[in-house]
Amino acid sequence: MGTEFLKIIDSEDVKGIIENIEIKREIETVHLTDAYLRVLAENVHATIDLPPFNRVSRDGYAVKAEDTFGASEDKPVTLKLIDAIGAGDKPEKKVEKGTCIEVGTGAPVPEGADAVIMVEFTEKVDGHVHIHKSAAIKQWIASKGSDVSEGDFLLASGTLLTHDKIGVLGAIGMGEVPVFKKPKVAVISTGNEIISYDETLEYGKIYDINSQTIANAVKSCGCTPVYSGVAKDDYDDIRTHIEQHLDADVIITSGGTSAGAGDVLKLVLDDIGEVFVHGIAVKPGKPTIVGKINNKPVFGLPGYPAAALTIFHVLVAPFLRKMASVSRRKSDVLRLKLSRRYHSSRGRHQYVLVKIENEMASPILKDSGAITAIAEADGYFEINKNVELVPEGVEVEVILLESR
Amino acid sequence: MGTEFLKIIDSEDVKGIIENIEIKREIETVHLTDAYLRVLAENVHATIDLPPFNRVSRDGYAVKAEDTFGASEDKPVTLKLIDAIGAGDKPEKKVEKGTCIEVGTGAPVPEGADAVIMVEFTEKVDGHVHIHKSAAIKQWIASKGSDVSEGDFLLASGTLLTHDKIGVLGAIGMGEVPVFKKPKVAVISTGNEIISYDETLEYGKIYDINSQTIANAVKSCGCTPVYSGVAKDDYDDIRTHIEQHLDADVIITSGGTSAGAGDVLKLVLDDIGEVFVHGIAVKPGKPTIVGKINNKPVFGLPGYPAAALTIFHVLVAPFLRKMASVSRRKSDVLRLKLSRRYHSSRGRHQYVLVKIENEMASPILKDSGAITAIAEADGYFEINKNVELVPEGVEVEVILLESR
Repeated sequence: MGTEFLKIIDSEDVKGIIENIEIKREIETVHLTDAYLRVLAENVHATIDLPPFNRVSRDGYAVKAEDTFGASEDKPVTLKLIDAIGAGDKPEKKVEKGTCIEVGTGAPVPEGADAVIMVEFTEKVDGHVHIHKSAAIKQWIASKGSDVSEGDFLLASGTLLTHDKIGVLGAIGMGEVPVFKKPKVAVISTGNEIISYDETLEYGKIYDINSQTIANAVKSCGCTPVYSGVAKDDYDDIRTHIEQHLDADVIITSGGTSAGAGDVLKLVLDDIGEVFVHGIAVKPGKPTIVGKINNKPVFGLPGYPAAALTIFHVLVAPFLRKMASVSRRKSDVLRLKLSRRYHSSRGRHQYVLVKIENEMASPILKDSGAITAIAEADGYFEINKNVELVPEGVEVEVILLESR
Repeated sequence: MGTEFLKIIDSEDVKGIIENIEIKREIETVHLTDAYLRVLAENVHATIDLPPFNRVSRDGYAVKAEDTFGASEDKPVTLKLIDAIGAGDKPEKKVEKGTCIEVGTGAPVPEGADAVIMVEFTEKVDGHVHIHKSAAIKQWIASKGSDVSEGDFLLASGTLLTHDKIGVLGAIGMGEVPVFKKPKVAVISTGNEIISYDETLEYGKIYDINSQTIANAVKSCGCTPVYSGVAKDDYDDIRTHIEQHLDADVIITSGGTSAGAGDVLKLVLDDIGEVFVHGIAVKPGKPTIVGKINNKPVFGLPGYPAAALTIFHVLVAPFLRKMASVSRRKSDVLRLKLSRRYHSSRGRHQYVLVKIENEMASPILKDSGAITAIAEADGYFEINKNVELVPEGVEVEVILLESR
């Protein structure tokens, strides 16, 4: 047992290597009702005018404005009522001088009319309408194309389709929506001691934690996880699991990278792919591997749950979000005071899980094997490799594990 | 045309009425891999110890600590190597005085051993191991139950199951997870002029916007929307749409509430249910109806998209979140400076849609019929009914339409 880390490098260098991995974004079309929280893959321009016709915006009477000039409470103007139309109707008559048509909100403005007078300022008597107020031209009319004209730019490629933006697509009747495909990410746990949650716990075994945290974290990055289950910590089994998932866009393993475990993933990558990074000068997460097979990135995370989760967030999540064209929420980074001082190991860039309590960041003082560290964690902050002590009360930048 | 609003009241009173609507929370069980972003419906206690056995936490040799006392680089202690076990193995031999067993990280600590000495401080020669450093008792051993003891409290009912929390459930092998059922919310658009996105736009018609915004906003509140399509603005059609969805937990309509539209929803509720609120002293959204049928809340939103969306967020969304047991993210409320002064209508509590630009809240100066208002909106702020002018630069509380 005992393996050297051959390519141990600083975390910033690892980030640079990962940023340079080429990404191809694929596009697919989804139905409007399935587009929620997908990412728009093309600029959307209006294909119609909005409103699509001159539209009445108050209940009342469509008139020729000049017919109403001078009308007042004392000296109403009387017009002949020749028709009534509501929203959704097609006007069949034309407003001629001296006449009016009763209109409901949303109805098309009948030909000949250039204003609408609100029902509150009128009185209907025996087929005639007394108008008590003069109307300004275009009053209570939303003109065709006044909100949006055909061809207007509406939404940019890359827009996250929240519910309000989907309403915009609905407004122009866009039933099929071009969105970026969700990248497929294979998630493999490795370790002879690891069993799936549906197996019986025998002596010396522990339940698989990383498949659950990593697969769901993959979802939070806008990607689709593919569970591969647990691989034994031997060359053939890990290679088989990896080869089964070469149709995925990314492969993430956890465990099987520590020195003692024999570093099987590295051997597999050496044979059928390439290793870029083998060991990172960080804590936790030193035994991390980054490589590729067939131009597909492969991330080998440490086995300890809190270490795997931390390295996922620091290195993998930004890459997955870039692939999926989703951006981190601005509100996912908080500036909070540290609730107690924290000693760091000089020489290794450190990531510290914290719980947020009373608007302060409280470091979780557990080792990265502890599941309770994950149960309590809300986010993490970073400590530079040259810093040995972060004093109580100092403001740190906490990156949330998941939006909340 | 023209209808009175019979029960017009202040928005705070409406909120009080809605808060008093009784909610019954139902529970269902989902598979662990489907539990992401569901809400835990029971407190979870540990059903096993974690680790489930005394676990080796570094690669090295399991020893009796007392055998190593006094060992140093100069004067190593030599122990007989009697076995080797890795993670997932069951130890078959016992560490007796003067012996040791090679162990990998994650392996069970063999009987008789009370410490692990890291491989770095040893040298293996011909079936023996030279130990160069003395070991403290329990060194590099994670004791059974030291992280979590059987029965320990792990996660509280009401916890949102983010990826990290799902890892905690995985750790105790919880394959079936009790979660709150997602409330079913029927979404009905009404209006004779409204057509579905898959129909052809004819003169006088407009595409249905509200079904899309509201149904997806329902998802953002942790509920499941049921699309009911578009109802004509007549008594029979609206009643039929509503009666078809009495198995839903909540019914939301939009349109059909303005005075001129004949207020059909109110008539339906009068006949088969009850009206609590008919008209609210707010802008936009005055013609809002709140009522119930068979103890199911019915919300009748205005027809104009921006008004429907605003009233949904102000009145309906908090109720849906309460039903679904999801809480608003704290980061969904931002304090931002107003980019320009804003005039409000005295006497009506006002909700103003804003776009966030350069860290400032920029009011959207469009009427509530404009789809571009929705295309640009990031959130809204409120203006009290006694305020007529909000000056430029004043800090306002912006509530985001959707987390970002």
